[in-house]
Amino acid sequence: MKIALDAMGGDVAPDVPVAGAVEALSELPESCEILLVGRKAEVTAALEKHGGARPRLTLVEAPEVVEMGDKPLAAVRGKPHSSIAVGLGLHKTGEAQAFISAGNTGAVMAASTLLLRLHPGVDRPAIGTIFPTMAQPVLVLDAGANVDCSARELSGFAHIGAVYARDVMGRPDPSVGLLNIGEEQEKGNAAVKEAHNLLAHASAFRFVGNVEGRDILTGECDVVVCDGFVGNIILKFYESVAKLVRELVAREMDPTVLESPGMTNVFRTLDYSEIGGAPLLGVRGVSIICHGRSTSRAIKNAIKVALQSVQSNLSQHIGAEFAGDGAAV
Amino acid sequence: MKIALDAMGGDVAPDVPVAGAVEALSELPESCEILLVGRKAEVTAALEKHGGARPRLTLVEAPEVVEMGDKPLAAVRGKPHSSIAVGLGLHKTGEAQAFISAGNTGAVMAASTLLLRLHPGVDRPAIGTIFPTMAQPVLVLDAGANVDCSARELSGFAHIGAVYARDVMGRPDPSVGLLNIGEEQEKGNAAVKEAHNLLAHASAFRFVGNVEGRDILTGECDVVVCDGFVGNIILKFYESVAKLVRELVAREMDPTVLESPGMTNVFRTLDYSEIGGAPLLGVRGVSIICHGRSTSRAIKNAIKVALQSVQSNLSQHIGAEFAGDGAAV
Repeated sequence: MKIALDAMGGDVAPDVPVAGAVEALSELPESCEILLVGRKAEVTAALEKHGGARPRLTLVEAPEVVEMGDKPLAAVRGKPHSSIAVGLGLHKTGEAQAFISAGNTGAVMAASTLLLRLHPGVDRPAIGTIFPTMAQPVLVLDAGANVDCSARELSGFAHIGAVYARDVMGRPDPSVGLLNIGEEQEKGNAAVKEAHNLLAHASAFRFVGNVEGRDILTGECDVVVCDGFVGNIILKFYESVAKLVRELVAREMDPTVLESPGMTNVFRTLDYSEIGGAPLLGVRGVSIICHGRSTSRAIKNAIKVALQSVQSNLSQHIGAEFAGDGAAV
Repeated sequence: MKIALDAMGGDVAPDVPVAGAVEALSELPESCEILLVGRKAEVTAALEKHGGARPRLTLVEAPEVVEMGDKPLAAVRGKPHSSIAVGLGLHKTGEAQAFISAGNTGAVMAASTLLLRLHPGVDRPAIGTIFPTMAQPVLVLDAGANVDCSARELSGFAHIGAVYARDVMGRPDPSVGLLNIGEEQEKGNAAVKEAHNLLAHASAFRFVGNVEGRDILTGECDVVVCDGFVGNIILKFYESVAKLVRELVAREMDPTVLESPGMTNVFRTLDYSEIGGAPLLGVRGVSIICHGRSTSRAIKNAIKVALQSVQSNLSQHIGAEFAGDGAAV
């Protein structure tokens, strides 16, 4: 199996993606190879810092780079030889079985949708994000691919999310909640109320009804469904709360407490970016978007998630979920 | 000045509201009185536990009680002698200058809007919530009064929030941000994009443009505007993060750390419920909604916020902001 990794994506590229790939190789099965896609000269230089060339690591030239500030569609059309376009091209032709990037999120999303296309029956792709909880992590989707969602689209996210929970998160009988402002069925805006009705008839997973903002982190649901406007705001808010807690602890406590193993564990749990990227679900293939600030550990974890997604036939299962008359929605 | 307090509202009523009133009296100016509204026998019994009858504390009979599970409109219409209806009636007739309740949020909101009415020009009232930050607290509104909001309504919340920030939070030159999924003007759903255009022309406050989920807790904005669907979800999510952090610290650290003065300060900062209730803004008067789980300290703080709201002529200023041709929106 080959995984294409955007070596030019992220705030510290190509150094961090290259380091993540090197770290991953030592933990991946022997049959797994990584294609580092980017400007060969720069990637080679970065690789030298991490032990140099080695088996199962192949460099693929991509002369253009999508910058973080580029407009997504303009970047896809104007830079056909970017590491994102070339990497996704390798996946599309079957030379790689998955693609990972910590680059411009909008561009990765647009390019993945345009190049890989969506499974028939899927109206919109969704970004899935893993939130840490005290119990098992929870999948929240959509985390930002779609700002306005119809009830049918929200229902589609539930089906996609349930497949991901089964295939990648190891939840054989996933429970799905609909994010809302109250538990009662009649609560919420028009789209959410109608989505509730659609989901009440779903048989592919356990629909547990509406869940509130306070219920996400209890870990009682495997999947929480919302539109991308709400999901994106919560995702970024969560990140900032962890930062606030760290600042408060630094202000109020002995500085050594912040460095203690216990507190390190607390913040490692809160730092969802370590968990391994956000899959773009609904496309025909495996495309994983990492935070621009990803560490090499986060990249390594994303590579493992990609491996698990390929091995479990995630994309095929999502396709099957939507195949046939009204199967999923 | 007289403040009417719903003695029957909240998870531990009348005990907690009565205790909060007693605590507040010792800190309020001599000219300030509290009217405890509820079933006199029960309120008297609760008061006995907190030192008994005293000057500046008057009991007002209200034989009915709105339960937490009651439907808001049904409660308002079916229980005209509830502590909520009687307390708001005292405010409406001028016998009290403000009303506070930790009871059924929906019922307090509906009864406040029906009995006090809205200022001319205000389309919808908004629940304002104070989020603690490292710097100054930030006002987030709407936190749940309206699930679907038009651009005009979002713009109205900005005007209302700016007046509150000036009058009650001591921000002479308030900055207002529009909650969105990106900083760029073209981001977001239709309502938010149009609201951005409306707010760009506002002169009554500093509009700082779009802010993201991660920007709320930096404390850089005095006011953050969103619809009640998003606001309510974030509010409840914030609450749950604080709970998760507490559980993580308990699991990972020596138990004595959780009890240390430093950590107590950390969680006191994160516990926004202590800050003093959520004002229902846009109604003609001062109506403050407290969390059902409010402590006596939270009730005391809400009473102080009510006092400040009355003394600063908050309601009159909101009315003036919307008076005249297109003044506010």
